[in-house]
Amino acid sequence: MGYTTQHSVSGDFDEVVDTTIAALEDQGFGVLSDIDVQATFEKKLGDEFRQYRILGACNPALAQEGLSEEIELGALLPCNVIVYETDDGDIVVSAVDPQQLVGIADNDALTAIAAEVNDRFERVLAAVTNDHKAASGA
Amino acid sequence: MGYTTQHSVSGDFDEVVDTTIAALEDQGFGVLSDIDVQATFEKKLGDEFRQYRILGACNPALAQEGLSEEIELGALLPCNVIVYETDDGDIVVSAVDPQQLVGIADNDALTAIAAEVNDRFERVLAAVTNDHKAASGA
Repeated sequence: MGYTTQHSVSGDFDEVVDTTIAALEDQGFGVLSDIDVQATFEKKLGDEFRQYRILGACNPALAQEGLSEEIELGALLPCNVIVYETDDGDIVVSAVDPQQLVGIADNDALTAIAAEVNDRFERVLAAVTNDHKAASGA
Repeated sequence: MGYTTQHSVSGDFDEVVDTTIAALEDQGFGVLSDIDVQATFEKKLGDEFRQYRILGACNPALAQEGLSEEIELGALLPCNVIVYETDDGDIVVSAVDPQQLVGIADNDALTAIAAEVNDRFERVLAAVTNDHKAASGA
């Protein structure tokens, strides 16, 4: 079983990232971290890598609710949405499955929160696919 | 079973954060994200919250190895070390268990990488506890 939900689209990489960030904001998520993996590997290792961004998404109200239930939960936050190029030149937008992520904590009080994040991530991915052409075969 | 390894220390919060970041760097991790949960909740919700930081730690070489094995792994990265105040005024420094985190991916090729990150995190926590007094009862 996968631990992400993936959508594959065509388009300009940076535009897809921007659309993804805007769609996250529309669903109440702030992007609290934005890691440029390609730039990091180039700087630290001198190696070329595909374009790859890790967006850390946080809905403050849901995060606060989760942390009130479980103070250690921050070790699993924020929930990531990644955007990367495939070898075929398509762009994958992929959201972590918050139910599996939070499942590590094994705390029933977090189940409804994770389900709510999951529903919102599904709408984010649908919005990105709606704005960009779905990649052929996706 | 917990999904973090926790050490509890006494001291100034910001100094413990600085020590933690320095210890991570000593073990080859860059801190690629640094989320101030207290400031975020104050800004977005207008609510008071304890001091709480989420440090996203990444060892570039290990991350690159992991992403080469599994392109979706970025959805679970970076591995977090959190620092927060307890109700008693102690400071907890807590590292996610990378073996449980990466366990979601169910990919045997990642096992050794997660074990290596775990070993380094253990040394980070030991260094922080060595620099600050362990909290009473911890």
